[in-house]
Amino acid sequence: MMNAGAPPLSRRSFLEGLGGVGGTGLVLAGMSALGFGIEARAAAPPVLNGRAGKRIVVLGSGVAGLTSAYELRKAGYDVVLLEARSRVGGRSYTARRGTELTELGGEPQTCSFDEGLYINPGPWRIPYHHYGYLHYARTLGVPVELFNNDNDHSYIYYDKGSGPLARRAVRKQEVAADTRGYAAEMLAKQVNQGALDQAFSPGDKELFLDYLKSEGYLTDSDFRYVGTPGRGYDVNPGASLQPGTPSTPHAMSDLLHSRTWDTLKSVSDFDQQRTMFEPVGGMDRLPYAFARELGPVIHLQHVVEKISQNDQGVTIGYVDGQGQRGSVSGDYCVCAIPLSVLRGIDLQVSPEFRTAMDGVSYALVGKIGLQMKRRFWEEDHAIYGGHVYFDDADIGSISLPSTGWLGKKGVVLGYYQFFANAAKISALSLAERQAFATAAGQKVFAQYAENVETSFSIAWHRVPYNLGGWAQWSDDGRRDAYPKLVEPDGRIYLAGEHLSYITGWQEGAIESAWSQITKLHKRVNA
Amino acid sequence: MMNAGAPPLSRRSFLEGLGGVGGTGLVLAGMSALGFGIEARAAAPPVLNGRAGKRIVVLGSGVAGLTSAYELRKAGYDVVLLEARSRVGGRSYTARRGTELTELGGEPQTCSFDEGLYINPGPWRIPYHHYGYLHYARTLGVPVELFNNDNDHSYIYYDKGSGPLARRAVRKQEVAADTRGYAAEMLAKQVNQGALDQAFSPGDKELFLDYLKSEGYLTDSDFRYVGTPGRGYDVNPGASLQPGTPSTPHAMSDLLHSRTWDTLKSVSDFDQQRTMFEPVGGMDRLPYAFARELGPVIHLQHVVEKISQNDQGVTIGYVDGQGQRGSVSGDYCVCAIPLSVLRGIDLQVSPEFRTAMDGVSYALVGKIGLQMKRRFWEEDHAIYGGHVYFDDADIGSISLPSTGWLGKKGVVLGYYQFFANAAKISALSLAERQAFATAAGQKVFAQYAENVETSFSIAWHRVPYNLGGWAQWSDDGRRDAYPKLVEPDGRIYLAGEHLSYITGWQEGAIESAWSQITKLHKRVNA
Repeated sequence: MMNAGAPPLSRRSFLEGLGGVGGTGLVLAGMSALGFGIEARAAAPPVLNGRAGKRIVVLGSGVAGLTSAYELRKAGYDVVLLEARSRVGGRSYTARRGTELTELGGEPQTCSFDEGLYINPGPWRIPYHHYGYLHYARTLGVPVELFNNDNDHSYIYYDKGSGPLARRAVRKQEVAADTRGYAAEMLAKQVNQGALDQAFSPGDKELFLDYLKSEGYLTDSDFRYVGTPGRGYDVNPGASLQPGTPSTPHAMSDLLHSRTWDTLKSVSDFDQQRTMFEPVGGMDRLPYAFARELGPVIHLQHVVEKISQNDQGVTIGYVDGQGQRGSVSGDYCVCAIPLSVLRGIDLQVSPEFRTAMDGVSYALVGKIGLQMKRRFWEEDHAIYGGHVYFDDADIGSISLPSTGWLGKKGVVLGYYQFFANAAKISALSLAERQAFATAAGQKVFAQYAENVETSFSIAWHRVPYNLGGWAQWSDDGRRDAYPKLVEPDGRIYLAGEHLSYITGWQEGAIESAWSQITKLHKRVNA
Repeated sequence: MMNAGAPPLSRRSFLEGLGGVGGTGLVLAGMSALGFGIEARAAAPPVLNGRAGKRIVVLGSGVAGLTSAYELRKAGYDVVLLEARSRVGGRSYTARRGTELTELGGEPQTCSFDEGLYINPGPWRIPYHHYGYLHYARTLGVPVELFNNDNDHSYIYYDKGSGPLARRAVRKQEVAADTRGYAAEMLAKQVNQGALDQAFSPGDKELFLDYLKSEGYLTDSDFRYVGTPGRGYDVNPGASLQPGTPSTPHAMSDLLHSRTWDTLKSVSDFDQQRTMFEPVGGMDRLPYAFARELGPVIHLQHVVEKISQNDQGVTIGYVDGQGQRGSVSGDYCVCAIPLSVLRGIDLQVSPEFRTAMDGVSYALVGKIGLQMKRRFWEEDHAIYGGHVYFDDADIGSISLPSTGWLGKKGVVLGYYQFFANAAKISALSLAERQAFATAAGQKVFAQYAENVETSFSIAWHRVPYNLGGWAQWSDDGRRDAYPKLVEPDGRIYLAGEHLSYITGWQEGAIESAWSQITKLHKRVNA
C-alpha cells in the first residue's frame, strides 16, 4: 500500500548508498525519510564480505570493543581483545552483591545489596530506535523488559520556585492536566474571539476548537478548564455508593510560579521516548553475551601502556594481572578506549591526531543506588517506576526501579547529577554521599531514611579506565577535531560512543564500531 | 514533613469512617484527599474480625466471587463456591493453545496458538491505582510486568478525515509534536501581543511564555515552532559523520483535517495512565492463584438454575457436569453472577429488586487475537507494544503485545470494538472475522496478511455465562436501580464489577466484593 508509485530502482540505489556510508542503521532511517520506512527491516551490522586474513588487536571490552571484535571475528579476522579490568563491559556495568569499585583517591567499596538486587550505574535505558543494541539483544538472546521512563503518578519536587506548589511533592498528572488545560482554555478564548481568524484556512477554526476541547478536557458549552479525572480524584471511584470525589485544579499562577511545568513537553525528547527497555538482570548482560561468544579472544587484566605502529602493523604493550609486561602485535588496531583514558597512554599517532584527541571533554557524572528495606514508593505512594523530578541539580532525579515489581526490597537511583554538581558530590566520602542522597529523598518520601539499608555510589570521572561518563563535543570540536578522529591514523582506528552523534549511549558505541570496522575491511579489501 | 499541622485524632476518625463505609481502598483515597496521602499504605481487604460461623454460598468464580470466597474463608466462614464452567476466572480469561469456546449460536472454536503464546480477551490492563488487584497479585504471588499502553512511535491510521494525512499511517510522535507545537506558537503570539495581559498576575506572563517555549519546543528568539527531534528524524543521528537529518513538521491545516489530534490529551484518562501492568503469563493467573488457595471450596461445572431463600437461609439448585440436578444450602449467598446472566435464572427476590436488575445494560464487545509468524511491527517498524489507533469503530485499535519482546512470533489484538460495531462484527463467521481483521491491519502494515497464522475471536455478548462485556449504567439506572442492588435482598448479596463505579475493570469486582462481604459480616455480627 505504501509502495504506490515508488520507483524501485532509484530507491534501492539510494539506500545502498546510505548503507555504504553509515551502516544499515542509516538504511532504515533513509527508508523512513523516503516515506516507505514502513517496510524497512531492522538495522543490522555491516556485512563484511571478501578477504579477512588479518590480525586485529581490539582494545577495550566496552560495547564498542566487543562489537568490533565480534563482527570482525565473524567475518574471519584473527582477533585479540585486551581489557584492563577483570570484567568486560566498560561503562555497561551492573553493581550487585560483591561488585568492587575504588575510585581514584577514594575508599574501597564493595556492593552489599541483597542477592538478586542490582543497579546499572552507567547506561540504563534502551530506546526503541537503538537498532544496533536491540539487534544484538535479539540475536545473542539477551531478554529485555520495559523501562518505565515516564510515570504520570510520579512526583515533581521543585524547591527553587515560589508559591504553594514549591517545596512540595506534586503529582506529575496534576501539573500536566492543569497547565495544559488552562493553556487550551486561554487559546480557545482567543480563537472564539476571532483573534486568530487569519491564521486559519476555511474549516480549520472549528477543527482547532475541537482539538483544544479534546486535548484540554474543556467544557462542552463554554471551553473552560475545570479539572479532569486524569489529574486524580480526591476519593477514587469505588464500589457500592462511591462514585468518586473529583479533585480541584491548582491555580494557574501557582503552577507558573512553581516552575513544575518545565517537566511538560509536547513530545518527549527523541532519546527519552517510549518504548524504552532495559536488559533483564542488568546492563552487563549484553557484554557477557558477547564475551560468551568471543571466549579466548578476550584477555582480561591486560592494561595497555603503549600503542605503536609502523608500515607493517601495530604493537600493543601491556601489563598483565601478574604485573608482567608483554606485547601483542597485529595488522591493525581498533582502539575502543575512551579518549579520556587514551590521552594518558603512550600512543604513536600524528601530532594532528593527538591534538584532535584533546578536542573533547568528558562528562562528570554521579549516581548512587540505595537499597531500600521496603518498596514504600509502590506500597504507600502507588508509584511504580519512573522518575521523581527535582530542580536541585545536586540531586537531579530519584528513579524508581522498573524491575522486581511488587517485591519486598528494591534499589532506588538516589541521585543523578552532572558537571559541577557531580564534581561537588563526588568529593564526599561514600558515607556522606549516602547521607546526602537520603536527606534528599526524605524531602519527598516520609519513609525514605528509615528504609535505606546500604548504597553503592559512583562518580564516573573518578573511575579508573573511564575517567568520565561520556564524550562531550563542543561545536568547534565537532567541526575541527571530530572528523580527524573518525579516520584512522595509520593502522589505528578509534571506536566508541565518542565517535558518534549518539554520545553517552551504547548505541553510539555500536554504530561507531560498525562504521570503523567497515572502513578497516574496505581497506583490507582495497 | 507532610504532617505539619495535621490533627492526628480527627484524621484518624475520618479515615476510620471511610474504612467502615467502603474498605481500605477508600482510606487510601481519603488520605490523599486530606493532603497526606503521601503516608498512606496500600489498600487491603477489610479485616473481618468477630463471629464467622456461618455457611456462605458464593456463585460465580469471576474475580468478585473468588475475592468473596477467599476473604470469607480467611475470616472463618464455611464457604462453598459454584462455578458453571470447567474453569475459574469468568471474564478474567486467557486464550492459549487448547482453549475452547463456542459462542451462542456459533461455531466451536479451539485456540491453536503456538505453545507459550496467548491473548487476554477480557480485561488486559491493570492501572497503578487498582489497589485491590495489586494487593492480591502481591500477596498471592502473581508476578506482573509492564503493559505499554502508550507508545510514541506507534501509528495513527484515520480514514475519515481529509488531506494528505488521512488514510496513511502517521507516527503518534509527529502528531503530538506538531499539533502542540503550533498551538504553543499561536498562544505565544497572542501573549506577546498583549492579548492576555489581564489574565496574568504580576510575573505570570514571562513564566507562561517560558512554559510555552518549553512545552512546544519554540525557537528562542521568536517563539516559532519549526519541528523538534522528538517528532523523529529523516535520518537518525549515528556514528562517524552522521549528525542526523531533521524532519519537517506537517502543516497545521493537514493535521487538523486528519483529525489525528483526537489521540492527544493533556493527560491520559484516569484509567489509562502509566504505570499499567499485566500479569506475567495471562490474565487468568490471578483466578488460578485464588483457586489454588480455595481448593475444594470451588465446585466447577455447577450451573446454577435456581436461587431461593427464606428466613433460615438460602438454597441453590444446580445442574452438575454429569447433568445431575442437586442443591446446596447455606446461611447467606454472595451472588457474583453477571446481571445479564442472573436475569435468566430462577431467583427469589422482591419485585423491586428484580426490576432494579433490569435497569442496566451490558456492553457488546468484540476482540480477536491474531497469531503472527513474525514480529514485523517490532522488526520492521520499531513499534514495541502500544496501540495503533483507528477512527473506524469496526476496528477500534490494533494492539501490539507487551510480552515476548524481540521474540519470534506474537499475538496481536486485531480489533477491539463495541456496541453496534461489535454486534455487526460478531455476526461474522470465525473465518470472516479473521479476514476482516487481516484486511484492517493490512492498511497499516504491508507485512500483515502474509504473517497471519491463526486467530481466536470472541464476542462477549454471545458468550454463555457472560452475555456481555460489562455493566453499563445510565444516569437513571445509577439513580434508581443501582442503590437497591448494592443492598442485600433478604439473604442474597450481589457482587461484581456491575456494583461499582469502576465497571469493566477487575478492580470494580474486587472492591464490590470487599464492600458486600463487609456488609454481610456486620450483619452476622450484629
